Amino acid sequence: MTTNQLINQIKKKQSFLCIGLDVDLNKIPKHLLKEEDPIFAFNKAIIDATHHLCVAYKPNTAFYEAYGIKGWRSLEKTINYLNKNHPEIYTIADAKRGDIGNTSTMYAKAFFEDLGFDSVTVAPYMGKDSVEPFLTFKDKHTILLALTSNQGAYDFQTKTIDGVEVYKEVLKTSKTWKNSENLMYVVGATKAEYLAEIRQIIPENFLLVPGVGAQGGNLQDVCKYGMTDDVGLLINSSRGIIYASQSEDFAEAAANKALALQAEMKDILAK
Amino acid sequence: MTTNQLINQIKKKQSFLCIGLDVDLNKIPKHLLKEEDPIFAFNKAIIDATHHLCVAYKPNTAFYEAYGIKGWRSLEKTINYLNKNHPEIYTIADAKRGDIGNTSTMYAKAFFEDLGFDSVTVAPYMGKDSVEPFLTFKDKHTILLALTSNQGAYDFQTKTIDGVEVYKEVLKTSKTWKNSENLMYVVGATKAEYLAEIRQIIPENFLLVPGVGAQGGNLQDVCKYGMTDDVGLLINSSRGIIYASQSEDFAEAAANKALALQAEMKDILAK
Repeated sequence: MTTNQLINQIKKKQSFLCIGLDVDLNKIPKHLLKEEDPIFAFNKAIIDATHHLCVAYKPNTAFYEAYGIKGWRSLEKTINYLNKNHPEIYTIADAKRGDIGNTSTMYAKAFFEDLGFDSVTVAPYMGKDSVEPFLTFKDKHTILLALTSNQGAYDFQTKTIDGVEVYKEVLKTSKTWKNSENLMYVVGATKAEYLAEIRQIIPENFLLVPGVGAQGGNLQDVCKYGMTDDVGLLINSSRGIIYASQSEDFAEAAANKALALQAEMKDILAK
Repeated sequence: MTTNQLINQIKKKQSFLCIGLDVDLNKIPKHLLKEEDPIFAFNKAIIDATHHLCVAYKPNTAFYEAYGIKGWRSLEKTINYLNKNHPEIYTIADAKRGDIGNTSTMYAKAFFEDLGFDSVTVAPYMGKDSVEPFLTFKDKHTILLALTSNQGAYDFQTKTIDGVEVYKEVLKTSKTWKNSENLMYVVGATKAEYLAEIRQIIPENFLLVPGVGAQGGNLQDVCKYGMTDDVGLLINSSRGIIYASQSEDFAEAAANKALALQAEMKDILAK
């Protein structure tokens, strides 16, 4: 998917919501455990109930890998279901990969070609030649970790290299990489106060913003400092939406939570 | 596996060689493509021919993920084969994972419990709470990326935070984390000249050293600066061993390459 197609979807739906499909068998409604593939059954119900309210879905691969081959099959079924039934929706493999060049190429093929995701999250620690293999794929985005939503972000990301924070060094350096127009960045909603300075370095790139909801980030603050003329934000909520209820009404409850966020986004877009 | 069990194996085999099982269907002998599971058939032949010469095997998960569910089945068969037939051999899932706390726990379970690896490689960018979930597992090691073998290592890892290189900051900070005795570190053989200073910070932890062979690193230099009283090194070679021949004699050719490295290691250990 191109960035313009994503922007058009945002305008049409009046939403820049991304729903994180982080499926934990201990947290989904018990009645689904009787299904042949409970993870896919859960995802399908969530997607059917929320696809008109969000513009993106983001399965975190850890939750699928934890169930081995069965989990990978659930992931494959989920992305296939999305690509077949909702091809207009943007898909993110939250995999946080990154390795030396020839190995990163294998990861890129796995997520972009075999699974057919529109984007994948990538860790920056190994530098240019670990990220550029992802950037060569046409109409695919590479979402680089910049300033993450967790407490550990303060261990290294906010330390300063010659007066410049590590995450800013990542932003600045990555702009010089080949096909850097295909970059988006992860910036946690819990770090909204950093967004104004981040926008000085990357005024236009889309940001994937986790941490609204369960982790305590605030949507209004994120939009105030991070929004661009083309919106430029994908706000992710995972647990806050998909685990809104653990009863048979879980999908409806998820849709209600998604609707509340979408309504808030519509208001912000109208300003 | 405990660190002592690993050290005992090294002394017994007079080897600290790790063989990287980075299987690319475009590079393995053509006759194997007729097999039901060519990747596992290749790994099994390599393991059968080399297990007495090395102390560890390291599949890089990217090469398995690239083939989807089939690839994950090959990875599962490979680790099961190792754990059943060669339980004394140390196993490394080269996965370079790392995410927020509850998600890292899912990754740790996937690699330590479900697949049964002895260790997993982890990226440090997201800090303490992304790594500590891995460290809680008893008799398992977490191998943290410190100074990688690729050119991109100079983009961020060697930059200085208040005069201290980022990779050194990673070493120093990670020592303060809970269960840090379960840490090993990745240091590329192509950066052997950094090892003396690294050993001042982490005098005892094992290092996983990729980059000998195809990437140009030198075994003698790595040992000169990186070896401890308990050896403290796992030297990895992937392509240089497993792709020594693309003919029917590929396993024998791999064993010859492994033997050459093991012989060199034996000489070093005798000094």
